[in-house]
Amino acid sequence: MNEILSVKNTRIKELKKLHKKKYREESHSYLIEGFHLIEEAVKNKQTLKQVYITQRGLQQWGSWIEEQQLANIFLVSDEVMNSLSDLPTPQGILAVVPITQLENVQLKGSWLLLDNVQDPGNVGTMIRTADAAGLTGIILGEGTADIYSTKVMRSMQGSNFHLPILSMNLKEAVQLFKEQRIPVYGTELNEFAVVYNKIEPQKDFALIMGNEGQGVSKELLALADKNLYIPIKGQAESLNVGIAAGILMYHLTV
Amino acid sequence: MNEILSVKNTRIKELKKLHKKKYREESHSYLIEGFHLIEEAVKNKQTLKQVYITQRGLQQWGSWIEEQQLANIFLVSDEVMNSLSDLPTPQGILAVVPITQLENVQLKGSWLLLDNVQDPGNVGTMIRTADAAGLTGIILGEGTADIYSTKVMRSMQGSNFHLPILSMNLKEAVQLFKEQRIPVYGTELNEFAVVYNKIEPQKDFALIMGNEGQGVSKELLALADKNLYIPIKGQAESLNVGIAAGILMYHLTV
Repeated sequence: MNEILSVKNTRIKELKKLHKKKYREESHSYLIEGFHLIEEAVKNKQTLKQVYITQRGLQQWGSWIEEQQLANIFLVSDEVMNSLSDLPTPQGILAVVPITQLENVQLKGSWLLLDNVQDPGNVGTMIRTADAAGLTGIILGEGTADIYSTKVMRSMQGSNFHLPILSMNLKEAVQLFKEQRIPVYGTELNEFAVVYNKIEPQKDFALIMGNEGQGVSKELLALADKNLYIPIKGQAESLNVGIAAGILMYHLTV
Repeated sequence: MNEILSVKNTRIKELKKLHKKKYREESHSYLIEGFHLIEEAVKNKQTLKQVYITQRGLQQWGSWIEEQQLANIFLVSDEVMNSLSDLPTPQGILAVVPITQLENVQLKGSWLLLDNVQDPGNVGTMIRTADAAGLTGIILGEGTADIYSTKVMRSMQGSNFHLPILSMNLKEAVQLFKEQRIPVYGTELNEFAVVYNKIEPQKDFALIMGNEGQGVSKELLALADKNLYIPIKGQAESLNVGIAAGILMYHLTV
């Protein structure tokens, strides 16, 4: 086991950069913190690039780490851990996890595509709901809130380890689904839109949810096979995007 | 029109107490702030007990107030308005609205009952969703987050004027529904629970949603005619209570 005692260590300096979105995108990696999330990751056969642990953490979880045969363990001082953590009271364990890339997944089954959804809380809730509804995976389009901050990570309760989450251009993603003849559903209330419950539940589909204010972009709506809407039976002006996604996913999945 | 220039005026002192939950409950009244909410209230034939407006507000909305034939208007100084408002930049208009009481409504149709839901954001979202799904009304049980703070008011986008919202003991409420033979649905995953989509959409029902962690209380579950559950088809441990409520309400309403 390697040991790092100084906050000035080059590896630690690089690691701290993972708190920034730009660097997470460049390195295709993010940090997870705390034993519960790391356990959930391992349970779901998620590769851990490295694990950083304090002496106290080692006493608590050392035998578990051995059982799981985890590699690339770094023993760090409390000072180093404090400098890496963004919790008020660091648990004493964190890990680096790779961000899923397109080449590692098959675009088949049922997918949720998020177009410019701004609120990280909404994105986190939709991922958790997709996980509950049994969707195959999620694609975050450009402009959609980043989910790899440790805060959103915690709110997802490990759903990000249960199904693949890709970040990519949604027009390209829609093309890939269409090439495989998987139906793509936009969501908008327009004169050609179809009431969602007229569509039969199905094994393969891509469902696009849009921005909280503007909805799905016109370009993507034009590419979709059908546009679905949820009727407003009362007087509210609209549904929260997370609620709408929940109703649609639970209806569409088999 | 009456005029109040001093923040020490007895009426103003009483009014400020409406920022506190206890006093709202005692006086069966709450404050709404800003023209948009007041317009939405009037549009929905909501009685306004009093309206407080600044000189500048009067210039902007004076003719609208006259058209609507609003009574009990009080012209207040900017200083008085600032002391009443909890916005950083007060709009210059606020009103006192009565909280709906049981004797003013009929417990018929479709109702959402909230048992000890803690998060005001969840409560606000569920009220907005109930409004979209066309429910008849909402009952907030004891322990459920208070919605009459001006912050939650804004998040509901006026849904509180579209359907009656009562605060009362849920055991008593359930008894009233049962006396009218309106089916009462609890929500829990237990061995006697029924998958929600085996229940036909219907005109009259009471649906109970529970606390974020503990769910619906055992006492209420025992009183319910049936307990419904939403199957988890993937690996998430649970659904957010607002999402679950949305799926159930959209399925149950005709």
